[in-house]
Amino acid sequence: MVNTVVVGPLGLDDIKTPFGSVQNVLGASASYSAYAASFFSQPGIVSIVGEDFPDEYLNTFTQRGIDVSGIQKVAGGKTLRWSGDYSYDLNVPKTLKTELNVIEDYEPKIPEQYRSAEFLCIGPMPPESQLSALRQMDKRPKLTICDTRDFYIKSEPQKVLDVIRETDIVLLNDSEARMLFNTNSLVKAAREILKLDSEVAIIKKGEHGAVLFTDTTHFSAPSYPLEEVVDPTGAGDCFAGALLGYMAKINEINEKNFRKAIIYASVIASFNVEGFSLNNLSSTTMDDIEKRYAEMQKIAEF
Amino acid sequence: MVNTVVVGPLGLDDIKTPFGSVQNVLGASASYSAYAASFFSQPGIVSIVGEDFPDEYLNTFTQRGIDVSGIQKVAGGKTLRWSGDYSYDLNVPKTLKTELNVIEDYEPKIPEQYRSAEFLCIGPMPPESQLSALRQMDKRPKLTICDTRDFYIKSEPQKVLDVIRETDIVLLNDSEARMLFNTNSLVKAAREILKLDSEVAIIKKGEHGAVLFTDTTHFSAPSYPLEEVVDPTGAGDCFAGALLGYMAKINEINEKNFRKAIIYASVIASFNVEGFSLNNLSSTTMDDIEKRYAEMQKIAEF
Repeated sequence: MVNTVVVGPLGLDDIKTPFGSVQNVLGASASYSAYAASFFSQPGIVSIVGEDFPDEYLNTFTQRGIDVSGIQKVAGGKTLRWSGDYSYDLNVPKTLKTELNVIEDYEPKIPEQYRSAEFLCIGPMPPESQLSALRQMDKRPKLTICDTRDFYIKSEPQKVLDVIRETDIVLLNDSEARMLFNTNSLVKAAREILKLDSEVAIIKKGEHGAVLFTDTTHFSAPSYPLEEVVDPTGAGDCFAGALLGYMAKINEINEKNFRKAIIYASVIASFNVEGFSLNNLSSTTMDDIEKRYAEMQKIAEF
Repeated sequence: MVNTVVVGPLGLDDIKTPFGSVQNVLGASASYSAYAASFFSQPGIVSIVGEDFPDEYLNTFTQRGIDVSGIQKVAGGKTLRWSGDYSYDLNVPKTLKTELNVIEDYEPKIPEQYRSAEFLCIGPMPPESQLSALRQMDKRPKLTICDTRDFYIKSEPQKVLDVIRETDIVLLNDSEARMLFNTNSLVKAAREILKLDSEVAIIKKGEHGAVLFTDTTHFSAPSYPLEEVVDPTGAGDCFAGALLGYMAKINEINEKNFRKAIIYASVIASFNVEGFSLNNLSSTTMDDIEKRYAEMQKIAEF
């Protein structure tokens, strides 16, 4: 029974990093978010792929208990393809090629059987499509987390603000938050988010961890210190999926649980970037995750 | 009885930030470091000023119990002057003017009565002068903390490495650490520092806090979330001075105490940047500090 709906692109990636290169691997936000969520909850993916999308990748999902009945396969269509090169800067890929293919003009359609799910993760898509996905649910989910991209913040800032108003959490990274609210101060940006009828603001800071703000409290989460990052692709998507998946598992929305969820999300993102595509996550166990979570407690202790 | 020796420049600053501007205020690293240390220990300053250095600023120190007998006043000389503008970026000042004056070619001379002190803080100076200061001590202090600047890392990287080898802690910020060890990874940079016969590596990350590494452990310290930074000048110097001052007070060098010292150092730096020069620190009490320290515990908790 799907309790976590993950809406977003699925794609095939070519990736180059200082540690090697891979072609035609499973990628895009819904892959990472659903896989990360599956450590804690029962996700179902709402997305679209072309005829070229390998069955093997659908099996990758179903073997994890991820429902794929919301993935529409377009006969004769081609899957989203992205090619990125991190050779020079592991933080920012150089995009060599993006072919939108079937994702262009895609409007997510939430299947009947997913509409009563209480946890919803919406990946980076046009803000209007994000709101459309939310509105297709039977009732407002217990928790909706949206991701976005600087592209949408630049081109449709007012609509991104609408998404922040109408959903529970829009995950921004620090540069996106500064850009959207035109301030250098993350604290000020967080205050603006909270004014938009949000109970919590979570800002991702990459290698510097993540911060959470409520009207009266603040949490600063460390990141897990990795000596080598093999492939940073999907770290933010894993963070979003794991955050929602953990909250779905605990099924009690409060700040204390958000703090734990952020740490689990950081831990799962840290495993993810130790390999290409989902390679490393696929061999990561709950024991590995709990061990790293315990390390995070030692890392934050004083 | 001076137990903490602070060696470094004293100066007079003109500073402009989005919150206003000040002229001729007490500045440069030794001012901030000694003042911050004085919350915990008995600092003495080793520095040089010109005839134009106001007696009022010497009183600022002595009223805090900071010994000024190591400050050499040059008859007819002019004090170091710096003028900076943070109007556009609160993280990086635009230096409008630096007049080295008496600090040019200054070689620190540790007064007889300071040479048995067990805690030594050496501000950003040419690496050779830093080592010279260290060698003037009767014996190796219990703890020596040095600061540096990207300028020395660019111009004399080998000598900066010598300072890391011969002292206990060289405080680098994240961009300096990446530059010195030619790596994007702070974890790798920290490993390199530890190889240079250092027991701990501490890397400052500005608004993202600070991290500590030993061979087997890692600590990630949050920063205190400030909505407004009035004047960032001296934050790093306060961090260094408070770190050393706290360790001098506790007088037991171990990782657990370093963790606490880093939090106190961050707290004191956070008070400092809420005002120009030492204005805000001068009205900050130990109660204020303990209160913010307790907040930091809540900020890191999960």
